[in-house]
Amino acid sequence: MTSSKRLVVVGAGPGGYEAALAGAAAGLDVTLIERGKLGGACLNWGCIPTKHLLAATLAVECLTAQAKQKLASGTVTPDLAAVQAKKKKLLAATHNAMAAHLKKLGVRLVTGNLTAVATGSAEVSSGGSVEHIPFDSLILALGSRPAAFPGVKPDGKAVLGVAPVLDFEAAPASFVIVGAGAIGLEIATIYHRLGTKVTLVDAAPRLAPAEDPDVSKVVAQVMRRAGIDARPGVKVESLVTDENGRARLTLAGGETVVADKALIAIGRFAATIVPGLAECGAMFADDNPNRAWLRTDDTLQTAPGIYAVGDCNGRVLLAHAAESQGVYAARHAAGLESGPYAPGPIPGCYYGSPEIMRVGAIAAPGDTISEAAFVANPIAQAHADTAGFARVVWKDGKVAGITAVGHGASTMGTLATVMVAQAWTREQAQALVFPHPGLDETLKAALLGEMKVKA
Amino acid sequence: MTSSKRLVVVGAGPGGYEAALAGAAAGLDVTLIERGKLGGACLNWGCIPTKHLLAATLAVECLTAQAKQKLASGTVTPDLAAVQAKKKKLLAATHNAMAAHLKKLGVRLVTGNLTAVATGSAEVSSGGSVEHIPFDSLILALGSRPAAFPGVKPDGKAVLGVAPVLDFEAAPASFVIVGAGAIGLEIATIYHRLGTKVTLVDAAPRLAPAEDPDVSKVVAQVMRRAGIDARPGVKVESLVTDENGRARLTLAGGETVVADKALIAIGRFAATIVPGLAECGAMFADDNPNRAWLRTDDTLQTAPGIYAVGDCNGRVLLAHAAESQGVYAARHAAGLESGPYAPGPIPGCYYGSPEIMRVGAIAAPGDTISEAAFVANPIAQAHADTAGFARVVWKDGKVAGITAVGHGASTMGTLATVMVAQAWTREQAQALVFPHPGLDETLKAALLGEMKVKA
Repeated sequence: MTSSKRLVVVGAGPGGYEAALAGAAAGLDVTLIERGKLGGACLNWGCIPTKHLLAATLAVECLTAQAKQKLASGTVTPDLAAVQAKKKKLLAATHNAMAAHLKKLGVRLVTGNLTAVATGSAEVSSGGSVEHIPFDSLILALGSRPAAFPGVKPDGKAVLGVAPVLDFEAAPASFVIVGAGAIGLEIATIYHRLGTKVTLVDAAPRLAPAEDPDVSKVVAQVMRRAGIDARPGVKVESLVTDENGRARLTLAGGETVVADKALIAIGRFAATIVPGLAECGAMFADDNPNRAWLRTDDTLQTAPGIYAVGDCNGRVLLAHAAESQGVYAARHAAGLESGPYAPGPIPGCYYGSPEIMRVGAIAAPGDTISEAAFVANPIAQAHADTAGFARVVWKDGKVAGITAVGHGASTMGTLATVMVAQAWTREQAQALVFPHPGLDETLKAALLGEMKVKA
Repeated sequence: MTSSKRLVVVGAGPGGYEAALAGAAAGLDVTLIERGKLGGACLNWGCIPTKHLLAATLAVECLTAQAKQKLASGTVTPDLAAVQAKKKKLLAATHNAMAAHLKKLGVRLVTGNLTAVATGSAEVSSGGSVEHIPFDSLILALGSRPAAFPGVKPDGKAVLGVAPVLDFEAAPASFVIVGAGAIGLEIATIYHRLGTKVTLVDAAPRLAPAEDPDVSKVVAQVMRRAGIDARPGVKVESLVTDENGRARLTLAGGETVVADKALIAIGRFAATIVPGLAECGAMFADDNPNRAWLRTDDTLQTAPGIYAVGDCNGRVLLAHAAESQGVYAARHAAGLESGPYAPGPIPGCYYGSPEIMRVGAIAAPGDTISEAAFVANPIAQAHADTAGFARVVWKDGKVAGITAVGHGASTMGTLATVMVAQAWTREQAQALVFPHPGLDETLKAALLGEMKVKA
């Protein structure tokens, strides 16, 4: 018998896992429910597998950059099957480490589906058995699911979602990617490095459509120079597996592109429809299940005692945002937090070629900005990879946003987050001694650059 | 005719160049004296050329790491002559850009040697001509020179200093490096990647002797695994070019190592002895010219109106420290600074394999520390490069120092500097949302790790 408050967490992705750990650390009696693998989309079909494939193909990128300038010759042939085997091993080791950590902290891990919620009780089904787990607080960390539309959805043959594409044991000779967000761009980079002929399309008028338009220009330039057929601003009519088992993309104008495989990576849909949830008072952003993100108050509750963290609340679909929310929700449930959830700025990074980093405001016309190009950075020069820039958005003389695109831009993410969180002044940037030489010096040059008004 | 105050700056390395720019920006009438190339040792024979060679050989490192795990096969052959040609071009472009920038700001650039100083006047000689340049303030940015000892000094044949080694157009088959500081370690990495058999010795009991002893252990482990014969704690008896034109290293015990070439990189000596300087009131740290660093007060003055910045004052022999001092001195001369020079913490990075970063205090026995290993970092895992750790030194519950060794450790330098400068608490680290996945997450894990007392 324990008298601790009972916390049930649903979903063991970044948000749910961290919530469970934080709940246990706060002395709650924690049950964590997961139907699949620990780690969620991030660990299993997102951030982490893409990083493995990007790292495993980096030697190709380095050699190509050097060879283009006639500074090196040779060949690099990644063994994709071996890379996948290693990835599986590492993921399995991570799953084991996570399970051991949960156990050590006394978290009960239940494998099963959340099939219904009632006030104070979660119904979990696994195979034929059903369990009702009582709770004082419930944290929903339900994640999200890949978006799809009629005519543009995976068919399990040549037209695929992100998960199977990250498990390829041989690179397709040709590949169509629909969607030029973070996932589409990173996977385009990976398979391009592996020798695949990549066609990348997006209905949005530019690549990386969520970022600064000038970032999109650099992305397009770098990808096209590399030989990727990147086409923003085209509408997909249909994407199907044809009679030869290949992917056939038909664009709105009638043009077709046929490739060995195709990936659909056009964003995420909500995955929040659980029987009983609405009756408990949960608030949904939309009647359409695809957009039915759980609306949360300023303490991340969607109903009294029911929290929604991570993708499922639709706030910021990033693993580290989910983690931060999960920790807060668990601590709030334990009575250790009383103020509203206020995480400060959330950085976002893209790790393909080129890398992108952004935190805080994106420059809008009329904003005061300052910037610097990577072309003058000795590290970028040394790597023969000088496209791109860093840009700072200023509000009232303080840093409100930082964006960078180019060599190693993702490595600036934490530093830029500090500067935005603390709303740095120019004088603060001037007073800090940056290590020389470093990519961060381009951020320094941007911070100290001429202030101008964005047209 | 101008009525501006006259500032003379001697030496166009990082400290002198930035002093000249800051002086001009402050409205001073600036003359910059340089006997050689703009950019000093950093640009011409130090930080920048090593970064070019490290970047140009990175594909080898990436491939080797992948191949060791049987994840890739192939060969990468850098064309060192082409790399050097490109480096020369980039340096020339940088020299031109610097000269243009000086000209634009109205700085007069004089090529020549500082041959004497008198109160209010600097004597500069070039070829047969001598010019006396009057000043109201003088900033000495004299740099330093490579250290050498009897029996251990470059002879211009097989036993070399750093400058010619960075200009090799073909990698030697075998190479002895004396000195395991930043320069020795980086050059060992470079030529090892180029297929050279490298022997690295140092009289100090460990590699990277200025860093945390546990960093040294990782460096030794990584270098030895790679196949570098790294031997700290050995005394060099002599290092000479033998009758066959090869370098012969004789150790104190009598053992000899013969190699095609040898590098001596055993630190820096002062280069401060200028006729008249002492008479102007300049203070020297030692009578021995090798250790005669210019002693400076808390406004970087070594005599009234005579500032010493960068290596020549012996404070911190790093380019970015020199830049920071140069800017301060010029602004102080212009009356724009009145308080003492207080730059905050100065980061230091090593960019070989493994990378090292350190800022602030190094852990001493009895200190409170917390730490995390890179082995759990997904980015390090993806790169098959997981040796090393990040360590935080705490004083009174605040960050007093950060050290990291391992994959991409140098990219954490600026962030770590901010944390040390602001003396972060654990709560601040907890509140910041770090991008996931990232190398910085190992720093976060170190910041949030278990506090313990260093044995």
